Amino acid sequence: LPSKLPYAGTTIFTVMSKLATDEGAYNLSQGFPSFDCSPKLSELVSHYVKNGYNQYAPMSGVPAFRESLAEKTSLIYGVNYDPETEVTITSGATEALFCAVTAVVYPGDEVIVLEPAYDSYVPAIDLNGGVPIFVTLDAPDFKIDWEAVKEKITDKTKAIMINTPHNPVGTVFSKADLDALANLIQNRDIYIISDEVYEHIVFDGEIHHSMMTHPQLQERTFVCGSVGKTYHTTGWKIGYCLAPKALTEEFRRIHQYITFSTVTPMQYALADFLKLPEHYLNLGEFYQKKRDRFNDALKASRFTFNPSKGSFFQIASFRNISEEYDYDLAVRLTKEIKVASVPVSVFYKEKKDDKLLRFCFAKDDEILDKAGEILSKL
Amino acid sequence: LPSKLPYAGTTIFTVMSKLATDEGAYNLSQGFPSFDCSPKLSELVSHYVKNGYNQYAPMSGVPAFRESLAEKTSLIYGVNYDPETEVTITSGATEALFCAVTAVVYPGDEVIVLEPAYDSYVPAIDLNGGVPIFVTLDAPDFKIDWEAVKEKITDKTKAIMINTPHNPVGTVFSKADLDALANLIQNRDIYIISDEVYEHIVFDGEIHHSMMTHPQLQERTFVCGSVGKTYHTTGWKIGYCLAPKALTEEFRRIHQYITFSTVTPMQYALADFLKLPEHYLNLGEFYQKKRDRFNDALKASRFTFNPSKGSFFQIASFRNISEEYDYDLAVRLTKEIKVASVPVSVFYKEKKDDKLLRFCFAKDDEILDKAGEILSKL
Ligand SMILES: CSCCC(=O)C(=O)O
Ligand SMILES: CSCCC(=O)C(=O)O
Repeated sequence: LPSKLPYAGTTIFTVMSKLATDEGAYNLSQGFPSFDCSPKLSELVSHYVKNGYNQYAPMSGVPAFRESLAEKTSLIYGVNYDPETEVTITSGATEALFCAVTAVVYPGDEVIVLEPAYDSYVPAIDLNGGVPIFVTLDAPDFKIDWEAVKEKITDKTKAIMINTPHNPVGTVFSKADLDALANLIQNRDIYIISDEVYEHIVFDGEIHHSMMTHPQLQERTFVCGSVGKTYHTTGWKIGYCLAPKALTEEFRRIHQYITFSTVTPMQYALADFLKLPEHYLNLGEFYQKKRDRFNDALKASRFTFNPSKGSFFQIASFRNISEEYDYDLAVRLTKEIKVASVPVSVFYKEKKDDKLLRFCFAKDDEILDKAGEILSKL
Repeated sequence: LPSKLPYAGTTIFTVMSKLATDEGAYNLSQGFPSFDCSPKLSELVSHYVKNGYNQYAPMSGVPAFRESLAEKTSLIYGVNYDPETEVTITSGATEALFCAVTAVVYPGDEVIVLEPAYDSYVPAIDLNGGVPIFVTLDAPDFKIDWEAVKEKITDKTKAIMINTPHNPVGTVFSKADLDALANLIQNRDIYIISDEVYEHIVFDGEIHHSMMTHPQLQERTFVCGSVGKTYHTTGWKIGYCLAPKALTEEFRRIHQYITFSTVTPMQYALADFLKLPEHYLNLGEFYQKKRDRFNDALKASRFTFNPSKGSFFQIASFRNISEEYDYDLAVRLTKEIKVASVPVSVFYKEKKDDKLLRFCFAKDDEILDKAGEILSKL
């Protein structure tokens, strides 16, 4: 059988997590919390599972949950999405991203991808016959050169993939970035697929500027979000897409034939949970403490870094430590000193090696302390 | 925004279920049980949700669950799939079907579809740039004319979609059908995508002949199965794909970028449940009683039908009752006599109207009795 994705092996997240388990290493590789969700939330799931909420949810999601999400969005961003026609629940943000790409990308269409980029974007484009057009962001600050992006725009450009807060590099879009982007797509038939799964995880007074907060962007954007990253439930695989009615219509046409609907009892539980005071997890503050705790150890090491401004990832340069290829180093560190990370080269099509490792700090303090202590001795 | 699936509105299942709810009708339309799963199974989910099993499952599924499934498959069909490399857990059988189609279908490839057909097959083919080639099965017995299928085979034929037991018409493949199919694909580069979600629901001594039981077919087939249809948990959206290693490799490359992985606590619960005696639900006997109960009422009506041989659907002809278009009648019956069904024309690309309605009998006896009584008076 020939392959549509010949470049795709098992994702780095699976590879490194498995290696971490096999080696008994501290797992700072794959992006998931080592701690559990709120007991109120698991209590609610238990309630619904035991009380017969086990059959198909509506294709677009449980209405009460869509309403809760729309209300929350309105409160935080001041933007109103109609739960009936503009909010869709998906089987993880990965499915939301895939459906959004599928909704707009036709064979031959070009899609701008800012690298480094999360590893599902390019396969989603390729599976739709699209052509990813890369703009490379450079270490150490990964600022977007919008002039460089503009130069890549052609008559064939159909969409731009956006990710803020950014995985893996932890940057956050500024208001000026949104203006530049709006300027770029003005009078052009270009859609925006915006991965905002770390929307609540920003630090040092940064603000998450969602694409939806800019009216010209909002009307062209599929905003993809994640329940898992926000409520510490990555294993429930619940994400969503917020998009204007016309975009949502096509999005749902796709979604209904890919997974049809998403796990029911969790959706009912979330609908309730979002109405409780406990739902406000204050993630920025929570994760900033973890970032600082981990970075204090890194400061004592020979790694160099700029503190992450958002997401639950910290990248750090190992130039002072080793000249190895980042992938080899990540594997070696997992085996030899029992700390697993992700090599940043995997986020580039051409595997660009800037001597960077990505550490996930969504981990219990003891894990961060232990891993930090080991790394500081490198 | 133009549409990739211009013919696709909201699925009939959503339309009719919503109409049934709005009209307070007995809902014999969408295929899901009106009763709950085993309390042991929901108890297990509750346990795992409350004990921290809430983060990402491995991409291919929880190992213990894959092992349970492989063991069950080996016991029932005498076919061994390696849980490590040949079993993949998906977000519903719909995702499994989509990934299988995506794995093999390239733009311009032809895919044979036997009509009537479940409504996700053609969109999956279209989204991959494939060309569905229809072979129409005729009422009342919907036998497959393998010579007619053979005539549609060309150099471009890449796959055949198979569905047994069949939704909506309730037919079941015979051993001779498997032989004919094997004969057809011999020395040809054709894959089989087999939807066997009703594998355990066969009646009157019929046997489910899985494609995997025929060695020449097995090596070319993606067998797609459903946890939801078997354990009364359609809302958990857990399906799976069994396929030889080479096929599974490409299947997983696709799956990992479409949903990545599937809800974790349910997979742990299922892994345990499949080891308990309670897991054997004796579905054939259970649903045969429901079929007979419902059909007894239908016999007293002016509907005519051949008893379903498998699945939890009964189709019936209303030629003696009305000359309406089946869709119009289904809507009218839901509104006027409060019994919802699915018009069979929706399972044909050209909306072929054989004056047939599909009734789902996966419903509590009282619902079947009430609905049957109403229908018998028509
Ligand atoms: C879907 S597994 C990857 C989790 C994640 O988002 C990451 O580690 O970057
Ligand atoms: C995915 S909703 C449709 C359920 C079903 O299989 C049917 O009613 O045919």
